[in-house]
Amino acid sequence: MLAADAGATLAAGGKRLRPLLVLLCAGPEGEAAAVRAAAAVELVHMATLVHDDVLDDAPLRRGKPTVAATSGRAHAVSTGDLLFSRAFALLAESGDGRSVALLAKASTALARGELAQRHDAFDVTISEERYLERCRLKTGTLFECACLMGRDEEALGDFGARVGLAFQLLDDVLDVSGPPERTGKARGTDLLDGTVTLPAIEAFATNPELAVDLRSLDPASAEALCDRIAATGALDRVRSRALEMVADAKELLDSPAFDPEQRHLLGLVADGVVQRYS
Amino acid sequence: MLAADAGATLAAGGKRLRPLLVLLCAGPEGEAAAVRAAAAVELVHMATLVHDDVLDDAPLRRGKPTVAATSGRAHAVSTGDLLFSRAFALLAESGDGRSVALLAKASTALARGELAQRHDAFDVTISEERYLERCRLKTGTLFECACLMGRDEEALGDFGARVGLAFQLLDDVLDVSGPPERTGKARGTDLLDGTVTLPAIEAFATNPELAVDLRSLDPASAEALCDRIAATGALDRVRSRALEMVADAKELLDSPAFDPEQRHLLGLVADGVVQRYS
Repeated sequence: MLAADAGATLAAGGKRLRPLLVLLCAGPEGEAAAVRAAAAVELVHMATLVHDDVLDDAPLRRGKPTVAATSGRAHAVSTGDLLFSRAFALLAESGDGRSVALLAKASTALARGELAQRHDAFDVTISEERYLERCRLKTGTLFECACLMGRDEEALGDFGARVGLAFQLLDDVLDVSGPPERTGKARGTDLLDGTVTLPAIEAFATNPELAVDLRSLDPASAEALCDRIAATGALDRVRSRALEMVADAKELLDSPAFDPEQRHLLGLVADGVVQRYS
Repeated sequence: MLAADAGATLAAGGKRLRPLLVLLCAGPEGEAAAVRAAAAVELVHMATLVHDDVLDDAPLRRGKPTVAATSGRAHAVSTGDLLFSRAFALLAESGDGRSVALLAKASTALARGELAQRHDAFDVTISEERYLERCRLKTGTLFECACLMGRDEEALGDFGARVGLAFQLLDDVLDVSGPPERTGKARGTDLLDGTVTLPAIEAFATNPELAVDLRSLDPASAEALCDRIAATGALDRVRSRALEMVADAKELLDSPAFDPEQRHLLGLVADGVVQRYS
């Protein structure tokens, strides 16, 4: 049953960005420890997806039924717990204490980010700083963790954190821009959940009349609000910021500490994050 | 918000059996590492309680409102994730790899036990062996882990596993026997949830007519079924088995590897598990 649910979650796809970052940062000499770390970081990511779908009562993820939808919420909570435990067991088996510490820190950040987002729900006055802090917790830290698990090098951690942040910003743009056939979910899902993201914060700053009570939205009026947010030019501004973050991230690798091949491959991953959304 | 929820969960009480076992097994020379391990095992236990209350939609735990009831299910899932992550972060900070491995293994068992219980729900034909395996996963392994975190000694792990198993058996007796004013929940809650425990398995074996469709139960008929299970003498038989397990557990400590003071204190904990239910 677990195998089936975990298998379905795995088979549903995903970009495997985090394990890719572990392996690329570790480089050719990474070997078994890097493969374990790569698996562990993806297990934690899967655990959070399974739990997020419980939190959001989501029927679909990546166009496939979620564990919560297929096997029930209770089953999904336990499945997430199991994936999470297996990640730590995997690292502990090989005595990789540094990776355990990194992953535990990142998991703590993930949960804090989720709690912060729930805490902020339906608050249309939250600041950009607060939003960015949430993104760092929710997304940036696990990307940073993936890179540092691969290799203990500060610049790699910073690279991962920036790429992760850009990834989240672009994901939030996509929720407003759609199209649904590409994102696999209706436009304005974040707004309906009460999650105020950077496109909305930017739009509310220039057009305060858009900061309506999000609890009053229905799917149709959420889509209409997306159109009005897009009309302010906020999406382009947020996209530009994400592109800058990725450019900054790539610049961090411009050092003799990294060989050209590694720099090239990590640059491709960073570009891939952007291209998916352009 | 987390601090408030975690604080409320902590303040709601509990017997702190698991951290007590860590500290007693570590003995006087345990010091800081044992205290961290004790805190970590209780954090994992708290995480599972918070998640269990989401799974069961429970309004009360230890007579106090649950996190799920106070702050919502979504918040409770994240709170559990955070408590869980903090447990591993705590151990990782001090580089206690052995404890990380033990705790990861126990957490995996906990989640597997929970999944097994959901899988078995409403199946009145499950065997005693299957039930005992579930109890080992759900309860025994974390008690065993607590003892082994305190001190790496096989006999202590076995002691913990047996005491944990006895604890679970007696807990399951209490669900049938009540009284509610002592357990803080209605009699027959397990039966209503479809959880078939040893008292029911024993009673169904001698009185097959009691193995009714549990989905048809309401609170009143569940209580009536509890009375009929009790009338078969099953509760006394299960209690006796739990007492035997505790006696066996104490015998394991009858070795020069343990000083008399440590043996005495661990014996008191084992007796305390029994006395709570007698």
